[in-house]
Amino acid sequence: MLKPNRHYADLKDSFLFVEIADRSAAYEKAHPEQLLLRMGIGDVTLPICPAVISALHAAVEEQAHTDSFHGYLPECGTPSLREAIAAHYARRGVRLDADEVFVSSGASDELGALLDLFDQDSAALVMEPAYPAYVDTNILAGRQILRLAANRGNGFLPMPDSDTTGDLIYLCSPNNPTGAAYTRSQLSEWIRFANATGAVILFDAAYEAYIEDADVPHSIFEIDGARTCAIEICSLSKTAGFTGMRFGYTIVPHELQRDGMNLHSMWVRNRTTKTNGISYLLQKGAEAVFTPQGQAETQKQIAYYKENASIWMKTFDRLGLWYTGGKNAPYLWIECPNGMDSWQFFDLLMERIQVVGTPGAGFGTSGEGFFRFSTFGSHVDTEAAAKRLLQWLG
Amino acid sequence: MLKPNRHYADLKDSFLFVEIADRSAAYEKAHPEQLLLRMGIGDVTLPICPAVISALHAAVEEQAHTDSFHGYLPECGTPSLREAIAAHYARRGVRLDADEVFVSSGASDELGALLDLFDQDSAALVMEPAYPAYVDTNILAGRQILRLAANRGNGFLPMPDSDTTGDLIYLCSPNNPTGAAYTRSQLSEWIRFANATGAVILFDAAYEAYIEDADVPHSIFEIDGARTCAIEICSLSKTAGFTGMRFGYTIVPHELQRDGMNLHSMWVRNRTTKTNGISYLLQKGAEAVFTPQGQAETQKQIAYYKENASIWMKTFDRLGLWYTGGKNAPYLWIECPNGMDSWQFFDLLMERIQVVGTPGAGFGTSGEGFFRFSTFGSHVDTEAAAKRLLQWLG
Repeated sequence: MLKPNRHYADLKDSFLFVEIADRSAAYEKAHPEQLLLRMGIGDVTLPICPAVISALHAAVEEQAHTDSFHGYLPECGTPSLREAIAAHYARRGVRLDADEVFVSSGASDELGALLDLFDQDSAALVMEPAYPAYVDTNILAGRQILRLAANRGNGFLPMPDSDTTGDLIYLCSPNNPTGAAYTRSQLSEWIRFANATGAVILFDAAYEAYIEDADVPHSIFEIDGARTCAIEICSLSKTAGFTGMRFGYTIVPHELQRDGMNLHSMWVRNRTTKTNGISYLLQKGAEAVFTPQGQAETQKQIAYYKENASIWMKTFDRLGLWYTGGKNAPYLWIECPNGMDSWQFFDLLMERIQVVGTPGAGFGTSGEGFFRFSTFGSHVDTEAAAKRLLQWLG
Repeated sequence: MLKPNRHYADLKDSFLFVEIADRSAAYEKAHPEQLLLRMGIGDVTLPICPAVISALHAAVEEQAHTDSFHGYLPECGTPSLREAIAAHYARRGVRLDADEVFVSSGASDELGALLDLFDQDSAALVMEPAYPAYVDTNILAGRQILRLAANRGNGFLPMPDSDTTGDLIYLCSPNNPTGAAYTRSQLSEWIRFANATGAVILFDAAYEAYIEDADVPHSIFEIDGARTCAIEICSLSKTAGFTGMRFGYTIVPHELQRDGMNLHSMWVRNRTTKTNGISYLLQKGAEAVFTPQGQAETQKQIAYYKENASIWMKTFDRLGLWYTGGKNAPYLWIECPNGMDSWQFFDLLMERIQVVGTPGAGFGTSGEGFFRFSTFGSHVDTEAAAKRLLQWLG
């Protein structure tokens, strides 16, 4: 008799986005004359930039003709793309070998796949509030989950102390959902901790393109010591609008080893065993992101979203609301006014000013009392929502 | 201290394709005047068909404009594509619910990912010679591997008997590397065995488009009883030339459950946890394959490869060589002439007539003494290679 993976029974159902959709739909049904402004959206809204579109059309055309057709590609990525990404890091002062760059279908896919590298007995350390997949993928693998609470006291950037344990440390900076971002010295402290205890850091850099502060690293490999303790997971989803295109990349340094086993070699072996690589089209599209034209065009899109961040920040400042994020991230995380819990604030926000956001409680217990706004809407909607918020709470 | 997955140390290195490349390169260096005909190639050579190319260009263009841009998509596939694939099955007399169809990045990726559904204590049963990933992905998961030898005696189509055990049964039909294909009654016997013992069949149907015999099922779900014991893994790689495009689909029936757990629900939960779905471009390209135009165009490509199969079959028949495959598969599997072992035949084939193929020993011990030819080359090359073989051995 086949035994199913019994750990599925340990998963908790996630009702966050279903519940938001249900409550919004109920409101719209009761108030058909009202238009809800959706300010919780975690998806990009601007289209793919021209440099990438041209590269994609060209790649499609290559696949139409025998002499330019591409079949199977190297599982870890085409050499030119791996070199283009390494060159992108070099421009930021980070030296990587091209074969330390692995292409992927996106950060979410990769965060699940990477767990194959680790033993079931290694415990995962997750800062909460957190992206739910950090927890769920480890539950499926039968791993113990340890939690470190982020809160207003630590600026939603928890640091290790003498009680901290954990073998597989998830750091997401800039953070989803809080938008908080670790500084160079904070990340150095995590790196010291990992090297001292033999832990490995999974560094989720999906939102690095939104960083403005010079003191906030885009890559954990900007910091000494990271090459012996970290894997970095990146994505073009929020950098170049690839949420529906699917492309990411992962850095596994040659020096990363534990217990006599080299994790870079293991990941090469994993990819050559478990995938046949990423679509030629997506690799050509991704390569265009790293050209000067692609960089200029995608940075213009990020500047657009950052104007929304600036609208929110001015509004929260005027209202005296405590918040993190916005400056280095596409998310803002406010403390709910008047001690409301996050679903109370959700309901009131919708009823009073027809704005929809994301209740912090949906990201774990320590998100209770907080609320996430995103910057991925249009300027017009963001300005209208901010104005209504000022009128209501001001 | 993080513990790495210790099972990586249990993997054996696979030198097959490296060794073929090395020996071919050495020959070419020693004989620069000779042109090798590569007849072992496992990759398609014809370009993507016009229906798919048009759909891809249109999808790229949609992604260029705000009003038609697509961000995140449903993780298990867009409804229209899942319905198109279910309709494709319906035309063959197989009734599926659209939500039993899951899109994937291809059969190889999916064969690794699906293992998340099963407990480590379930044993995998693999027919050898086999696609190496069946074995390696299970070794990485720490599972016991049981082997059932395919050989000339059973026509390279092993059947269960009273000694057969195994919880996770890999069936690849038509088979890679042997090209042998199970008939309806043979598959029924495997289904009876799985339902009686509680095993689950992973049915790899990557080569179904090459089936000609009416008695060979394209899908395991053509047979009664499969819905309670089988998962079917399909690919557009060899059906529509998608080896470098990456797209596949998987059928997990609602009725499939073991030990009180429903594997369909588990797979939905797995996908929504571990992926953000397949690229919009690839889903639109795949959908075009299932249109009448896409079907007509891809069947023309398959007919091209099947002409190569027919050249090989005539040649082997004339030479009196025993073989499987060709009729229902893009591969042919011959018994090496004069009792040669498969690397002896490889060397002699290259030295005497400058033809390169794939030694059967590379697919497992029971492949020794056999040799794989593929049909993915051009007609000109295949005819030339067949002619040389006739002159040499005839």
